[in-house]
Amino acid sequence: MRARLQASFDRQGMMSTLGAEVTAADRGRVEMTLRHDDRFTQQHGFLHAGAVASVLDTACGYAALSVMTPDAAVLTAGYTINLLAPAAGERFTIISEVVRAGRTLVVCRGEAFADGDPRPFAVMQATMTAVYNQPGLSG
Amino acid sequence: MRARLQASFDRQGMMSTLGAEVTAADRGRVEMTLRHDDRFTQQHGFLHAGAVASVLDTACGYAALSVMTPDAAVLTAGYTINLLAPAAGERFTIISEVVRAGRTLVVCRGEAFADGDPRPFAVMQATMTAVYNQPGLSG
Amino acid sequence: MRARLQASFDRQGMMSTLGAEVTAADRGRVEMTLRHDDRFTQQHGFLHAGAVASVLDTACGYAALSVMTPDAAVLTAGYTINLLAPAAGERFTIISEVVRAGRTLVVCRGEAFADGDPRPFAVMQATMTAVYNQPGLSG
Amino acid sequence: MRARLQASFDRQGMMSTLGAEVTAADRGRVEMTLRHDDRFTQQHGFLHAGAVASVLDTACGYAALSVMTPDAAVLTAGYTINLLAPAAGERFTIISEVVRAGRTLVVCRGEAFADGDPRPFAVMQATMTAVYNQPGLSG
Repeated sequence: MRARLQASFDRQGMMSTLGAEVTAADRGRVEMTLRHDDRFTQQHGFLHAGAVASVLDTACGYAALSVMTPDAAVLTAGYTINLLAPAAGERFTIISEVVRAGRTLVVCRGEAFADGDPRPFAVMQATMTAVYNQPGLSG
Repeated sequence: MRARLQASFDRQGMMSTLGAEVTAADRGRVEMTLRHDDRFTQQHGFLHAGAVASVLDTACGYAALSVMTPDAAVLTAGYTINLLAPAAGERFTIISEVVRAGRTLVVCRGEAFADGDPRPFAVMQATMTAVYNQPGLSG
Repeated sequence: MRARLQASFDRQGMMSTLGAEVTAADRGRVEMTLRHDDRFTQQHGFLHAGAVASVLDTACGYAALSVMTPDAAVLTAGYTINLLAPAAGERFTIISEVVRAGRTLVVCRGEAFADGDPRPFAVMQATMTAVYNQPGLSG
Repeated sequence: MRARLQASFDRQGMMSTLGAEVTAADRGRVEMTLRHDDRFTQQHGFLHAGAVASVLDTACGYAALSVMTPDAAVLTAGYTINLLAPAAGERFTIISEVVRAGRTLVVCRGEAFADGDPRPFAVMQATMTAVYNQPGLSG
């Protein structure tokens, strides 16, 4: 399962460009990291919410994929993100977990933390879709 | 107002990295474009939802800023995005508009279109916050 | 189609209790009304967001059902609601429309208006699921 | 704090009509219950999502109010709800907690459980607004 996730992750140009890494992956739970980078800031110099959302989305997608059967590919149906504070810091930890999985839809939650702060600065509630037997779609 | 938006936009490392552009900006309505780029793909080769969400978020932020008083800075409080189809195409048009503005919170809607398709492939409902008198925050 | 919607609507205890009515139903678009009622208020005397959300949700569900094949039943997968002002007024108009429909998921938008105010006081972005061949589920 | 919550709760016509009860209230965490009632069903005979959302919304609002200063009133700015399974059961437990509180916005999460099932059938991510010095608004 971990190999399947990593293979899919390695095909994501976006994750490589952002410099994001998978630091842990268990059944239904994924942990990733992201670093501050001036290429991905918003107008006040903090990391752009879109960079954080991209990694939260990916982490939720892989948490969902980790509980799907091996013939499934995962697509994001949608998500809600709340930004509780600016993404101020050097190193961001993103944690996602499956709330409940059906055959087609899997709902996940994600949280983003800055440096050592134990309070999340962003939270996500995401709905992932399992796609079966779609030529060209895997992982 | 257009100059204020552009100045803020030009400070966003993320928008410059993604190659996004503001193509129209009126009071309460902003239009942006984004091109397919292999640096920002997800695992199936489509543009990553996070890249699309980043531009939708920015477009909603500037639609909101365009109706705020000049002393306000804008922050994203949160948003919901639904992905109705993969971001398949070469050139993406993102359109945002203000639904209703209060003094502190401004709710916006955004839509993303691929090439000539008149149906949106992604829709966003976003809540923006006006921040006043916060040193270092403008635009 | 209108008959199928009305039959399903008439089975909803919640809609009858709230006194909500379907005032228009076309392919992909539904209009409903709701009146202020002290039985459904929140702590400040306005109509509870939950009453408004119930009708917005139902209206989005029927807009979705109106574009599904006759063998489908509709379930709400989820929605986001933003409340732009309190539900202050006597008569509320709720309008929903389909943004885009897939075979399984249909995304809709809804708006709620109070009395003659042309600005919505609440907006919804909803995801509906089509369910096929599930014994006991129709409409 | 508990008395302030209960006083506000007792003014909600909606909660009394639904028969909802506050069963626990601590700083930043509220627990409520709701029973199945044919007056509040959707078209398939399950409890309407709107009834569940109303109680989740109220529980999130009171979790938020419990961490606000006594001069604040609470309003729902918006929420996202995902319905993971129909609301099938006799007795529903709703649990809410504060994720993070600012002076104006408080983000909460809620979960709804049916009978003895340890998996939530609905989850909410909500944004509450603190309102200060608004005549006629308290609690």
